[in-house]
Amino acid sequence: QLREMLLPMEAADIALLMEELPEETMPLLFRLLPKELAAEVFVELDSDEQELLISGFSNTELKEVLDELYLDDTVDIVEEMPANVVKRILKHSDPDVRKSINEILKYPEDSAGSIMTTEFVDLKRDMTVEDAFKRIRRTGPDKETINVSYVIDAGRHLIGLVSIRTLLLAEEDDVIEDIMQTSFVSVSTLDDQELAARSLSRYGFLALPVVDTENRLVGIVTVDDAMDVLQEEVTEDIEKMAAITPSDKPYLKTGILETFKARIPWLLLLMISATFTGQIISSFENALEAFAVLTAYIPMLMDTGGNCGSQASVTVIRGISLSEIEFSDLLRVIWKEIRVSVLCGVVLAVANFVKLILVDRLLFQNPAVTPLVAAVICLTLVCTVLCAKLVGCTLPMLAKKLGFDPAVMASPFITTIVDAISLLIYFQFAHMLLHIG
Amino acid sequence: QLREMLLPMEAADIALLMEELPEETMPLLFRLLPKELAAEVFVELDSDEQELLISGFSNTELKEVLDELYLDDTVDIVEEMPANVVKRILKHSDPDVRKSINEILKYPEDSAGSIMTTEFVDLKRDMTVEDAFKRIRRTGPDKETINVSYVIDAGRHLIGLVSIRTLLLAEEDDVIEDIMQTSFVSVSTLDDQELAARSLSRYGFLALPVVDTENRLVGIVTVDDAMDVLQEEVTEDIEKMAAITPSDKPYLKTGILETFKARIPWLLLLMISATFTGQIISSFENALEAFAVLTAYIPMLMDTGGNCGSQASVTVIRGISLSEIEFSDLLRVIWKEIRVSVLCGVVLAVANFVKLILVDRLLFQNPAVTPLVAAVICLTLVCTVLCAKLVGCTLPMLAKKLGFDPAVMASPFITTIVDAISLLIYFQFAHMLLHIG
Ligand SMILES: [Mg+2]
Ligand SMILES: [Mg+2]
Ligand SMILES: [Mg+2]
Ligand SMILES: [Mg+2]
Ligand SMILES: [Mg+2]
Ligand SMILES: [Mg+2]
Ligand SMILES: [Mg+2]
Ligand SMILES: [Mg+2]
Ligand SMILES: [Mg+2]
Ligand SMILES: [Mg+2]
Ligand SMILES: [Mg+2]
Ligand SMILES: [Mg+2]
Ligand SMILES: [Mg+2]
Repeated sequence: QLREMLLPMEAADIALLMEELPEETMPLLFRLLPKELAAEVFVELDSDEQELLISGFSNTELKEVLDELYLDDTVDIVEEMPANVVKRILKHSDPDVRKSINEILKYPEDSAGSIMTTEFVDLKRDMTVEDAFKRIRRTGPDKETINVSYVIDAGRHLIGLVSIRTLLLAEEDDVIEDIMQTSFVSVSTLDDQELAARSLSRYGFLALPVVDTENRLVGIVTVDDAMDVLQEEVTEDIEKMAAITPSDKPYLKTGILETFKARIPWLLLLMISATFTGQIISSFENALEAFAVLTAYIPMLMDTGGNCGSQASVTVIRGISLSEIEFSDLLRVIWKEIRVSVLCGVVLAVANFVKLILVDRLLFQNPAVTPLVAAVICLTLVCTVLCAKLVGCTLPMLAKKLGFDPAVMASPFITTIVDAISLLIYFQFAHMLLHIG
Repeated sequence: QLREMLLPMEAADIALLMEELPEETMPLLFRLLPKELAAEVFVELDSDEQELLISGFSNTELKEVLDELYLDDTVDIVEEMPANVVKRILKHSDPDVRKSINEILKYPEDSAGSIMTTEFVDLKRDMTVEDAFKRIRRTGPDKETINVSYVIDAGRHLIGLVSIRTLLLAEEDDVIEDIMQTSFVSVSTLDDQELAARSLSRYGFLALPVVDTENRLVGIVTVDDAMDVLQEEVTEDIEKMAAITPSDKPYLKTGILETFKARIPWLLLLMISATFTGQIISSFENALEAFAVLTAYIPMLMDTGGNCGSQASVTVIRGISLSEIEFSDLLRVIWKEIRVSVLCGVVLAVANFVKLILVDRLLFQNPAVTPLVAAVICLTLVCTVLCAKLVGCTLPMLAKKLGFDPAVMASPFITTIVDAISLLIYFQFAHMLLHIG
């Protein structure tokens, strides 16, 4: 009855269930599944579990699973397995599948070629719709998708595409050439996987053709895989924005050392940068001794600067990765941030001035908070907000222009820079208004 | 020849081009396009441009565009238009389309119901494959997708689904009931759009059925729209993580006031919170006067704490939104963060100790940096890193448990909390080792 319970479930859910059960029961459960579902579940498992299962498979069992897999999924599995398992997988794959696997493996990591599948339906321009349907019915079961068919010439160059909808709505004796769509978007095998996924999403395609340098059709990327890529790329961006070296593995699957290694370089780098901020404080030690009250407002100034900066930088970084913002928009972005930051700065300064005078001076009776001290703090606030927003919006765009990933220019870096700027401004105003330092 | 240039382009690209041209030329360009492409381009335009075009349309033109639109896109447009334009759109829609629009508009914002389309292919269980193809050929042109057909009973309850692939590979006289898939995933009209999009992505579907409270099929969500929803939700999360109230509009399209309003409440809130950190510094004024050197290391301690906290919180927030981390994992997460933070803390402390003694004391000959002072700073570092990581990983999970959006518990909030904690630890160690305060 366990089998009865599993059968109506989606493969992804069965995989989740299996990962939560004790390791010994996994192969038992797996063998209960019908061949096709078993293969689907296998794809959804984490690589540790896949390795465990493979090591328990007989050669026949391995071959059975491999035969059911789509090529791109086999490649994904092969990429994660140790060398001896890869050898075993390749040995038990069909010769043509093996050839395709080896070819896909040659493409650089995170390229369109590395995520494509070579299992698509190809048609010839002179076929009739009837011929096309015959071909789809014959070859379709092994193809990743039949929703779009690709029309190629004798040299395997992509010359058009035709959707299953077009085929269904056409007459049986229509010729493919007459109904195919001849303008289409494709990516090259060496393009970044993110570019492929973004085009697919932008144009609402179900699959995107991948061509080689001679414009020959070598594979397609399907929408389900593109969705996974987009999620992966977003996770990567978010991790970079939080000063973490991105990893492909889910949090609970990474080891302590791995997580440590992904985090420590950035922490060290930022810690060292932050000591410059300390230097600034040291160099104004005398000023702070004369007006000790100024020290208490340093965290507020630095934090507000940091927050303003990260608001601007994160907005711009996201805009860049959604292609909403380009380098040519730099002046527009700067002009917008200037106006927004004047508004924010003034409101924050006024709120803070009222708080300084009413709460700190009158309520808590702190005589050191003179109107002049309050003025220093609030003027610093306005200037800090302005600088923070400018640095926040400019750095990611410059990074992009210089070929770096803009995502790195998020809160942690911006905060570190803005901390120093805000202190310099603070002591400048203290010098001007309180005549110290 | 302009027309010749536009025809082979994708709708999304034409829309982008039109938005960059002067406003007057937009209607001219638009009228060059064939009806179907024109409608596709119209959908991709921003709502300002859509409004502009509609205001220039004759009633016949408006009706022509509306007739070509898919229902869910019409609803999206209607949602953004001012009341008088909505009236005009509804007036020139077909009566049954108008009824559907009004129904979809009733669903709450960001619900599955609000993003679904009612234009799907429905079949009856006793149809043959031949009947099904006839129905698809007849009704297909108006449907958003024909890749999946939905089998409903007399009460419009969803009882199965059948993909176009299954239909193509079946025999003409097979009965739908025998080939349909009877176990399937669906969402309810009131479920969050994110849930719908995530299921679709998780299971690799091309469309997801949406049912009402009585399990009647009312619509479907297609994969292209799900991709847009996922991108939207990610942008929302990223904005929340940067202490910005999320907005649906792209950065360059929002007005200054709008951007200001999205940012200022959080800045004010965080500024006020940061004054508590200032209070802590004030209350240890005497300690800082005795050991002025301690002040210079405050920014480094606070920043490192903030960075450690945001590394942990952002990782956990992303894990939660990808459903990789659940509340039941709390202890595992805490245990992992404890070990990682001990590693990070020790490495940072050692690096810092070496820097304090070699650079600050010996190189810059600052006699105030005694080994004991260095010890205070480094011990604080270890404890701050630990607290920061713990706060960072716990708060998002608690927020989720309490029904808040975990994304709010990112860098800005964590930083503010960790700032205060790190200072308290700092002065505690100063008190213990330097006997001050
Ligand atoms: Mg791959
Ligand atoms: Mg779209
Ligand atoms: Mg695939
Ligand atoms: Mg990448
Ligand atoms: Mg990227
Ligand atoms: Mg990757
Ligand atoms: Mg929304
Ligand atoms: Mg909507
Ligand atoms: Mg998938
Ligand atoms: Mg749609
Ligand atoms: Mg939402
Ligand atoms: Mg959300
Ligand atoms: Mg800070």
